[in-house]
Amino acid sequence: MIEVEIKVNLSNENPEKILESLLKMGFLKKEIKEQTDTYFNGIDRDFQITDEALRIRCSKTVGKNDEKIYVTYKGKKLDGISKTREEIEVEVFEVNSMHKIFEKLGFKPVRPIKKVREIYQKEDIEVSFDDVLDVGKYLEIEKVVSNNFERESALFELLDLLKSLNISTDKLEKRSYLELRRGNRE
Amino acid sequence: MIEVEIKVNLSNENPEKILESLLKMGFLKKEIKEQTDTYFNGIDRDFQITDEALRIRCSKTVGKNDEKIYVTYKGKKLDGISKTREEIEVEVFEVNSMHKIFEKLGFKPVRPIKKVREIYQKEDIEVSFDDVLDVGKYLEIEKVVSNNFERESALFELLDLLKSLNISTDKLEKRSYLELRRGNRE
Repeated sequence: MIEVEIKVNLSNENPEKILESLLKMGFLKKEIKEQTDTYFNGIDRDFQITDEALRIRCSKTVGKNDEKIYVTYKGKKLDGISKTREEIEVEVFEVNSMHKIFEKLGFKPVRPIKKVREIYQKEDIEVSFDDVLDVGKYLEIEKVVSNNFERESALFELLDLLKSLNISTDKLEKRSYLELRRGNRE
Repeated sequence: MIEVEIKVNLSNENPEKILESLLKMGFLKKEIKEQTDTYFNGIDRDFQITDEALRIRCSKTVGKNDEKIYVTYKGKKLDGISKTREEIEVEVFEVNSMHKIFEKLGFKPVRPIKKVREIYQKEDIEVSFDDVLDVGKYLEIEKVVSNNFERESALFELLDLLKSLNISTDKLEKRSYLELRRGNRE
């Protein structure tokens, strides 16, 4: 599974106008998620340098008691524009034991990234309005493809959508929320 | 959670007689499990030397479609007689992704250990007759305690049970099935 994903900073944009355009295009509101992501640094290598990530995500729908926990490994980015990477994910039953196992193995956790994510969907494209604590407001556009052949055309499709929303590609942000928070405050 | 556990080699014992004694003591047959354990070696250290373990276990009851998958970290042994260690375990939903994540992070898997485990129980003590592929037949006696204070008395209790079964403490085996297989064939 490859997640083709682009992200833009909303600080100088008008989110209401963007949402209006999305709804006109046929996007429908899917849900609002509260997500807490704990990232770990590598044991034998610095994931900041190798551009990898190990994450435990706790995700729940606002207003529901449906918390789910995922462990995700992300490989390094595959191109110079998007945030596309190989991603391997598995759901686990309990967060504390998983966290402890990674720590015992030698992975170093960093302070969790907390965000509220409002998700809109049309067919296989998801657009999320992310409000990230200590980072800011961002728009993520994502499509999951199964192989490298589909990757390029998916990326063009997402960039087309960005254009339709009147957002310049100058606003594209490749850095993760973790990297952005580091740049902002840490 | 601390797993107090002793193990004996059954190659020169009479399993039928041991089982008969257990049943007389009030042990009841619980289930038969088929277990496949994949161990991984460490990234920055050799778990054979540090006496740690990282394992993915697939466990199913014979005759049932109830496979469960667990990730377990085991710390080094806490005494010179038993196999008692700190153990942290979490259930996961899917085995292949978990395996791939560990490999991507740099852990090296070894050939899985396959066994059939016939489990008898009385109160909080479990006795298992293990038939381990390429290793042999062993008896494991186990009790789970919550802290170090309870550990010693639990160990005495298990050694008492061993005596009642007429098995000499000379037969105690501290090595894991993985270590035993290494010694036997690898």
